[in-house]
Amino acid sequence: MTKIETGDLHTHIFSFSQQEVKQFATLTGDTNPLHLDEEFAAQTQFKKPIIHGMLSASVISKILGTEFPGGGSVYLQQSIEFLRPMYVDKQYELRLVIKEIYTSNHSAIVETTIKDIASKKMTIRGEAMIMNEEYF
Amino acid sequence: MTKIETGDLHTHIFSFSQQEVKQFATLTGDTNPLHLDEEFAAQTQFKKPIIHGMLSASVISKILGTEFPGGGSVYLQQSIEFLRPMYVDKQYELRLVIKEIYTSNHSAIVETTIKDIASKKMTIRGEAMIMNEEYF
Repeated sequence: MTKIETGDLHTHIFSFSQQEVKQFATLTGDTNPLHLDEEFAAQTQFKKPIIHGMLSASVISKILGTEFPGGGSVYLQQSIEFLRPMYVDKQYELRLVIKEIYTSNHSAIVETTIKDIASKKMTIRGEAMIMNEEYF
Repeated sequence: MTKIETGDLHTHIFSFSQQEVKQFATLTGDTNPLHLDEEFAAQTQFKKPIIHGMLSASVISKILGTEFPGGGSVYLQQSIEFLRPMYVDKQYELRLVIKEIYTSNHSAIVETTIKDIASKKMTIRGEAMIMNEEYF
C-alpha cells in the first residue's frame, strides 16, 4: 500500500449517460423534471436535461472509497458548490488533492473539484473530510 | 401553489433496503466494502454495512426537487456532516427548514437534517442553497 501524503493528487475521468440519470431518478425517487424532461429543461437556462447534482457528486465518494485512498474510507463531511450544470455524454475530470492529514484520528481533508474537460471550466468545487484507518 | 416563507418546515420519512444500496453501488461504481461486505463491515466500528452517504443525502435533493419547494429546483450548494452511520431497513426522518429567501435571484438557504426515528439522534446535518424561479 502506497503511503498517502499531504499534496498528493488523484484524477479520474468519467461521464454519465441519460440511461444512468434515469436509473438514479428511479432509485432515489428524484424525478425533478430538470433531469428527465427535455421539454421542461428546454425552457430553463440549461436548455437540456442536467445530471442530478448528487449523482455527479457520487463520483467523489466512489473514488474516495475505492481508489484514493481506497476501501474502508468513511465520509465525515462534504461541502459541494454546484458551479455549472453537468450534462450526459460529456467527459468530466474529478481531481482530489490531500490538503491535511490528521493521523491522531486517521482522517484527512481532501479538496474535491470536477471540471468539464472540453471547456476546462470547473463544474463542482468542494471539500471532503474522510476517515480511513489504513491510510491515514 | 402555496407560497413558501422563511421558517417553513417540511418533513419526509424514508428508509433504504440492502437491495437499493446494491443498486446504488452498481450504478455509481461505489463498491466500498463498508456498504456491501458484511464480513468487512463486522470488523469496523459500524459492525454491519452502512448506507452510502451520498445515497442518504440524495433524499435531500429528491425532496427539494419534487416536494418542497418542488420541481425545477436547482442545486447551488450543499454542505453535509455525516454525524452517525445509517443502516438499511431503519426509518429516518428528513427535516427541511427555510432559513433565508433571496427573492432577487430566486434562491433560498434550507437547513437539511436527518434523524434516526427510533433513537431520535441526528445522523446528517447540513445546509442547502437552491434556486427555484417559481417558488422564491
